[in-house]
Amino acid sequence: MLSLKARPLTEDAFATFGDVIDRRIAKSFTINGGRTQRYHDLARVETLGEGARALVSLFVSQPVPVPLDVDFLERHPKGSQAFIPLHGERFLIVVAPPGETIDPNNVQAFVTDGRQGVNYRAGTWHAVQSVLDREGEFLVIDRGGPGHNCDEYPLKVRVTLD
Amino acid sequence: MLSLKARPLTEDAFATFGDVIDRRIAKSFTINGGRTQRYHDLARVETLGEGARALVSLFVSQPVPVPLDVDFLERHPKGSQAFIPLHGERFLIVVAPPGETIDPNNVQAFVTDGRQGVNYRAGTWHAVQSVLDREGEFLVIDRGGPGHNCDEYPLKVRVTLD
Repeated sequence: MLSLKARPLTEDAFATFGDVIDRRIAKSFTINGGRTQRYHDLARVETLGEGARALVSLFVSQPVPVPLDVDFLERHPKGSQAFIPLHGERFLIVVAPPGETIDPNNVQAFVTDGRQGVNYRAGTWHAVQSVLDREGEFLVIDRGGPGHNCDEYPLKVRVTLD
Repeated sequence: MLSLKARPLTEDAFATFGDVIDRRIAKSFTINGGRTQRYHDLARVETLGEGARALVSLFVSQPVPVPLDVDFLERHPKGSQAFIPLHGERFLIVVAPPGETIDPNNVQAFVTDGRQGVNYRAGTWHAVQSVLDREGEFLVIDRGGPGHNCDEYPLKVRVTLD
């Protein structure tokens, strides 16, 4: 079993896997006659294949135990998948780069700080949603449409926090 | 000037204009081995035209005075625009059906209850984001890409609450 300590999520460390959705690190401009600040284009939404479209959904998830034992990673080859916490929820992330197999040396674990959301790039291997502390609610933007869009890869990982 | 009293937002009353994003009225199913409930496909995201894509952004808006005086409505002919409050923010909505002109008899005003988000259909005339009570933060899903995607139509409306 692979053992990983979750590191604080940063944009640079996550760049291989997707986007960190966080207005503290985002560019913005003013709209609506000065009333609104727009933090613009925070995630690359991918919806590949004929007849595909972006879906907006809500996930309500029960918290995971820590250490977290993961048995597999999954990927969505045809679409990105974004998770934005609606109530300051922290969550654990386990990811590996796209590819037909997973090299255990390339698996990484992160922990968010409650304000961060993430967008997994199409094909990025990742653990299922793993909220910490309490029940979590997330706005999810992913792909709907025809064709196979979920693969699983068996991999045993134990993730710890400090 | 048109005077309208904002009515509580409901899915049925809003059906002409777009979607109400609210898991209390949504269908769901269980995923992630029982850990997550997925409230699925709550908004029809429209991104029309070659090279268009869905954008994920955050809007931080200052509150409007009530009564709210609106001078114009706007529409996005090539894309939908969804607003999901991140901290229970209530907001006012002023909408009119798609079309080259606006019939004042068809303009409607709604107020959300804090848990509701909305998705304006492409072409739906609407007032700019009008949060009540306090500064608001909204997750916004709209369209990016080439081509003209914002029209304004002058229309004076005064919106009151109960």
